[in-house]
Amino acid sequence: MPSSAQSRAASRPQVQDGDALAAIDLGSNSFHMVLAQHMLGQLRVVDRLRETVRMADGLDGKGGLSAPARQRALDCLARFGQRLRGVPRLHVRALATNTVRQLHDPQAFLGPAEAVLGYPIEVVSGREEARLIYLGVAHAQPPKPGQRRLVIDIGGGSTEFIIGSGFDPIERESLQAGCIASTRRFFPNGRLSKKKWNAALTEISAEFQQFAGLYRALGWQEALGSSGTHKSIGEICAAMKLTKGAITAEALPQVRERLLQADSIDQIDLPGLSGERRPIIAGGVLVLEAAFQALGLQKLLVSKAAMREGILYDMLGRGGADDPRDASVQALIQRYGIDETQAARVEGTVMRLFEQVADDWALEDDDARMLGWAARVHELGLAVAHSQYHVHGAYVLEHSDIAGFSRQEQQVLAALVRTHRRGVPKTAFDALPDRLLLSARRKAALLRLAVLLHRAHDGDQIPTLELAAQGDRLTLVLDRHWIDSRPLLRADLLSEKDGMPGLGIDFQPMVL
Amino acid sequence: MPSSAQSRAASRPQVQDGDALAAIDLGSNSFHMVLAQHMLGQLRVVDRLRETVRMADGLDGKGGLSAPARQRALDCLARFGQRLRGVPRLHVRALATNTVRQLHDPQAFLGPAEAVLGYPIEVVSGREEARLIYLGVAHAQPPKPGQRRLVIDIGGGSTEFIIGSGFDPIERESLQAGCIASTRRFFPNGRLSKKKWNAALTEISAEFQQFAGLYRALGWQEALGSSGTHKSIGEICAAMKLTKGAITAEALPQVRERLLQADSIDQIDLPGLSGERRPIIAGGVLVLEAAFQALGLQKLLVSKAAMREGILYDMLGRGGADDPRDASVQALIQRYGIDETQAARVEGTVMRLFEQVADDWALEDDDARMLGWAARVHELGLAVAHSQYHVHGAYVLEHSDIAGFSRQEQQVLAALVRTHRRGVPKTAFDALPDRLLLSARRKAALLRLAVLLHRAHDGDQIPTLELAAQGDRLTLVLDRHWIDSRPLLRADLLSEKDGMPGLGIDFQPMVL
Repeated sequence: MPSSAQSRAASRPQVQDGDALAAIDLGSNSFHMVLAQHMLGQLRVVDRLRETVRMADGLDGKGGLSAPARQRALDCLARFGQRLRGVPRLHVRALATNTVRQLHDPQAFLGPAEAVLGYPIEVVSGREEARLIYLGVAHAQPPKPGQRRLVIDIGGGSTEFIIGSGFDPIERESLQAGCIASTRRFFPNGRLSKKKWNAALTEISAEFQQFAGLYRALGWQEALGSSGTHKSIGEICAAMKLTKGAITAEALPQVRERLLQADSIDQIDLPGLSGERRPIIAGGVLVLEAAFQALGLQKLLVSKAAMREGILYDMLGRGGADDPRDASVQALIQRYGIDETQAARVEGTVMRLFEQVADDWALEDDDARMLGWAARVHELGLAVAHSQYHVHGAYVLEHSDIAGFSRQEQQVLAALVRTHRRGVPKTAFDALPDRLLLSARRKAALLRLAVLLHRAHDGDQIPTLELAAQGDRLTLVLDRHWIDSRPLLRADLLSEKDGMPGLGIDFQPMVL
Repeated sequence: MPSSAQSRAASRPQVQDGDALAAIDLGSNSFHMVLAQHMLGQLRVVDRLRETVRMADGLDGKGGLSAPARQRALDCLARFGQRLRGVPRLHVRALATNTVRQLHDPQAFLGPAEAVLGYPIEVVSGREEARLIYLGVAHAQPPKPGQRRLVIDIGGGSTEFIIGSGFDPIERESLQAGCIASTRRFFPNGRLSKKKWNAALTEISAEFQQFAGLYRALGWQEALGSSGTHKSIGEICAAMKLTKGAITAEALPQVRERLLQADSIDQIDLPGLSGERRPIIAGGVLVLEAAFQALGLQKLLVSKAAMREGILYDMLGRGGADDPRDASVQALIQRYGIDETQAARVEGTVMRLFEQVADDWALEDDDARMLGWAARVHELGLAVAHSQYHVHGAYVLEHSDIAGFSRQEQQVLAALVRTHRRGVPKTAFDALPDRLLLSARRKAALLRLAVLLHRAHDGDQIPTLELAAQGDRLTLVLDRHWIDSRPLLRADLLSEKDGMPGLGIDFQPMVL
């Protein structure tokens, strides 16, 4: 006997004492893995791996990835996968960022990557990346109640800026300017000059200007940099005896002047700079100088924590009562004025349907939660227009920054809303990776049924209808007396025999 | 010397005593024209024309229009145009509804139609049609403060349901079920039977169910029908001595029974039914019976006023301080939490730019108002996501029901928001009719400039910059001292030399 729908929906991938948790960050410059053990509510890091993969170097500007960069990435993931062997799937979260976002066919990379790693890999938006970075940095800092904190993370392809307080981000921005991308863009042949530098500084500053005003108005009491770029520049400042490791408004121009004494990148001679970092340090100093100018920064401390730690703490949240995705869905309900009463009716019914077929259809807790969120927001598009509202809702869900959701999770949510009524377009599930396809179609069938049962938008109590799944066949048993008094509902259910095939499902309503 | 920007923006197509105003309704069944004279704040109807065009009969189900239906429509519009000769363009408003909404290439019809009519023709959404119907009916009824009124309009292709109070609609719905469309759909070969009737009733009722619950919960004190279908059925009720002209829950089934005594449509024998109405009365009675059932109606009065009168009163509103579009734009600002301070800065600047080139670019009051609205909502898409926010904003503006705007007006608004930053796609203006193309591109250029000047989102005062337009060339004169202290702005302005060509404009910033 399976547990009840409510308890299944409420259950989370519980983390027990002694459990291992792992986070993997497929960054544009380097890949990181951190393995931690959960002990008495705390995380204890037991292993860290870092490899300079420099994936962004393989981007061809048209969404393609060079074979060597792809191979470096796969080799690294194979090594990470080996280290993780035996850790359960729900305790590992691997996230890809800017470089994979730029690929025109991310699945062509992610499919083989997941195969060698042995775990699913999700893509996160720049702003979700920013949220996770902040979460990681905030957990590594002493709490300062009431104070605001600025965090800057200069990645290989993008740079994230976050202002937050405590563990909560207040503003999150992600801009297309990273240390590899900027080095390639502004110094394409490796030649350096003061003139090129200034022109580049103007361009990047113009990008930063669009949010700098808001950030300066909010203000902060401490500023932290969380990337390898910051670590390197902090080490250079210390080696040049300019600071004890912090980066300051006085020190940074001296680092830049020293850097520009070289005519080309391979001649850069900065104390404390590793050979590995040299090819990309120019772009890093450039982006950081633009950030100092745009934000009027005086001093930046270097944080050792970054997104990888943020992923770990986010997994703890997802496993507990504080799943950030619940708050995000609630925020959508507010913004778009969704009818919560109707949403709750549909959610209740879809959960009762789910419970009956979950085992036969191999649907899991994650699926139950996703179905619950989809039920809560399925009418979102009504805020735009009644006509085609399922299309409008899917558009908003696919394109919004929804904190806590990976890109794939948003795509599943959008596909469920897109297909909850009317015809199912052939392309509705195209954005999803293969591994999510079958379960997404099955969830969509359940949501369609639940929405249809509550189409009258009234308080008519829907009894627990008997639903059975076998392969692609879904059989709904209806009491003759009950359905005979609901001719409209019967007509709707019959018409689903034509609607469900779009989901690859053979729907059979039976009247007994 | 032209008037100042503010006064131009504030000026409306003023209606003076004695002015003629005309409204044309290109309905799916008949075309109506009403010509009125404005006297002491009132409208006095001086002429009415009505022709049974039956345009919906020419729809082929794939968005095509048959040659005979098209010719009937053009012939009718030529006659209307002859009657209107001499009435100024701003005093004539011609609106097309459901049948034109269904065309896959509406411009192929609207271009020739505008040519023979001699006035522009706009398309309105079903819900905007509903608003205008309500406005027309409400002005023809004695005011009943605090009471709610239900208005039903059964057109040839769609049916509108509105609940309102006084002159204000509260809920508006438009459903794809009209008297011609339903006759063709459910009685395709003209054969009638009780069984077909009941099956059709179930299908239409299922459609109506989705809003009926809300409507019944709101309730109403009087119900009115405003279409030719209601007029006919009311006359039949009276001729059958069932009522004195109203339509009641008792009378309607008797009309239906009498109708179904015929085996085919051409044999329908109903007292008081005109020969012209006979081919489409079955669909009309069917839709009305479904509406009576879904809404639990007891009695429906017949209103002589309809959308055509609503268009007239809406023109008075547009000409006065109560332009309904202002309220709609304000509602968008609220819903999407648009930064009004920034919007006001951009609006102020765009109006100062507009003023300098309006005469040379043949831009008019309508263009000024559209630019103002576009400035107010250009950041709407930020509510979805920062990345590509101009695309998201354009999506919402194109697909939303925005009260008071015709479809073309929404498309202009969406195109201005779509092109206010970044690259201008070749297709950005494709949806617009040719007559609006040039002025839309010119407005887009002005909005781009204004947004760019305020990109820093701060209170930096932008002086009145000298702008001159000559054909496709737009020259902006910048004071050297002023621009030298703003290197980012200068870089942005220079890059517009590459951005504007997408709008067909040769932009030349000059530093003096």
